[in-house]
Amino acid sequence: MSKSVTIPVHIVITTGEPAGIGPELVAQAFARRASLWYRAAHFTVLGDRQLLIDRAKQAGVDPAIWLMETGAPVVLRDVPLSVWSIAGVLDAANSRYVLSMLDSAIEGALDGTFDAIVTSPIQKSIINDSGVLFTGHTEYLAKRTGTSRVVMMLSGTGNRPMRVALATTHLSLRNVPDALNIDGLVDTLVIIDQDLRARFCIASPRILVTGLNPHAGESGYLGREEIEVIKPAVLRACASGVHARGPYPADTLFHPRYLHDADCVLVMYHDQGLPVLKFATFGECINVTLGLPIVRTSVDHGTALNLAGTGRADCGSLIAAIETAIAMASTAVDGAMIRGTASDSK
Amino acid sequence: MSKSVTIPVHIVITTGEPAGIGPELVAQAFARRASLWYRAAHFTVLGDRQLLIDRAKQAGVDPAIWLMETGAPVVLRDVPLSVWSIAGVLDAANSRYVLSMLDSAIEGALDGTFDAIVTSPIQKSIINDSGVLFTGHTEYLAKRTGTSRVVMMLSGTGNRPMRVALATTHLSLRNVPDALNIDGLVDTLVIIDQDLRARFCIASPRILVTGLNPHAGESGYLGREEIEVIKPAVLRACASGVHARGPYPADTLFHPRYLHDADCVLVMYHDQGLPVLKFATFGECINVTLGLPIVRTSVDHGTALNLAGTGRADCGSLIAAIETAIAMASTAVDGAMIRGTASDSK
Repeated sequence: MSKSVTIPVHIVITTGEPAGIGPELVAQAFARRASLWYRAAHFTVLGDRQLLIDRAKQAGVDPAIWLMETGAPVVLRDVPLSVWSIAGVLDAANSRYVLSMLDSAIEGALDGTFDAIVTSPIQKSIINDSGVLFTGHTEYLAKRTGTSRVVMMLSGTGNRPMRVALATTHLSLRNVPDALNIDGLVDTLVIIDQDLRARFCIASPRILVTGLNPHAGESGYLGREEIEVIKPAVLRACASGVHARGPYPADTLFHPRYLHDADCVLVMYHDQGLPVLKFATFGECINVTLGLPIVRTSVDHGTALNLAGTGRADCGSLIAAIETAIAMASTAVDGAMIRGTASDSK
Repeated sequence: MSKSVTIPVHIVITTGEPAGIGPELVAQAFARRASLWYRAAHFTVLGDRQLLIDRAKQAGVDPAIWLMETGAPVVLRDVPLSVWSIAGVLDAANSRYVLSMLDSAIEGALDGTFDAIVTSPIQKSIINDSGVLFTGHTEYLAKRTGTSRVVMMLSGTGNRPMRVALATTHLSLRNVPDALNIDGLVDTLVIIDQDLRARFCIASPRILVTGLNPHAGESGYLGREEIEVIKPAVLRACASGVHARGPYPADTLFHPRYLHDADCVLVMYHDQGLPVLKFATFGECINVTLGLPIVRTSVDHGTALNLAGTGRADCGSLIAAIETAIAMASTAVDGAMIRGTASDSK
């Protein structure tokens, strides 16, 4: 047998809102897992150098980990704050700082420098207060990569993870029904199917779809979107080879009996699927953006301003996000190598 | 000390849709728990005598339990079917049968014959197909008892049950936002507070309230109902002595950290709270109608037509509904006795 060589993937990490828990979580995650990660990946961490050193110290982590004194394959790329940041205190003046980290990460992922982006939490409201319209990482990434449709998927981190994808994301509840249409749902199902195959190594992904209304509309008595939009979309997706089923009532779908036969549940809106997912995973879940030309994962939680600077926040979700990014990027890189080899041998 | 005497409460059970699993679940529940229940309560079971005997047999339960041959304190009150019912096959002609059981139960509860009603599942769509507008047990009970506002609450059955109450129930999702208003939410919170005190023996109920929009509106960026409706309602309820807090984002509220300090979560609509509750309780939850002049509990599941007549459906929810009804009715009866005694001693 020939000796196989693994090429480490290159992961970029944005440290997010400087007043939040992002900077210290990154330090804590590396302190706990770096020895494992360094065999599989190189890292570039984006953030204000002094901030990251200070927050690491506050959280009880030796900042040497950031300073390449250890010879570890991690580069801290200094992105200077606009104004100094105090833990827990938001300042709209640093919104540009937060966005410039994101822009650098996206640019590097698009030009092939990075194989995956992992994002720490940001504070949407303060970015909006600074005058920049910002609805979320997911939407920002879609726009900056010129992608017309992306899908937000949250995933538990166990051996048989529960995965929940959203047909709509950060939208007022009253705008949800009219945001659903057959073409959009078909595109969403196709994206989930393709990315679960290509990036999660699932040969034939099985997707369950919820209804929009209580009891999935109860045969039309509680709403007609199931009959007029969701069912036709499921049928059309199936006709193109996607293994989708539904729509089913959301309140009874999240049962081991059904989840056992599913790789992903597509819910129609944010609060239909995320309360149960987060309950089921005790906060140990991550956010993956499907449909992008690049790999991107994220924590599933917010900036937790009240915990910033204390070292008491839990870095479990960030660790899971980084490890999923490594796995997804490796699948993509190895897949390309395998495809390359297969092609060469023709 | 004086010897205390317990007066058994009288529970009426409707057996629900005749083609569904209701009739056999009632037989199975009595077969498993009757010896315990008969010390605390008398029972009247409503349904077609021959149907209940046949379905008990099909489910492997000795129908003698229904026939008073055992001398048990249970009366089977014969309510004849309109047409014979085959397990699993709906017939709109029996909608009157289903409703007449409900009417008898409500009438008996209002005149003091029964201390509580337990309802088995019905099929809303077939009742509507028969020409009777029917949105659910909860709404029907409100109308028949002349109650302007009731609250549907679902409850797990463990030692520290998760309880979820709904601000809106069986409503198309697009009609939810405009169905919420300050007065209605205040009334809902007051009803939850009063009934948890009076019927669940909770001295000072703590209620957590969700937002309507993702992230509870994210400071108004994802919707303004939290600012304009929900928060004012919570404040007004608090001013009248209700221990309510919120609105909080629904996706992070269902965490032990928060649930630990709550007796009930009020969600804004059906699919915001029930997927997580049903997941958390593995189907072992029940439905309680708060705000009625009578006690009413129910299973949390449907008619399961595909399982009818097989004996394979799980009677756990019905058992929990019956035991909760006994406890709630006993609290009401004992409370009245205690209040009576206190009054006499003045």
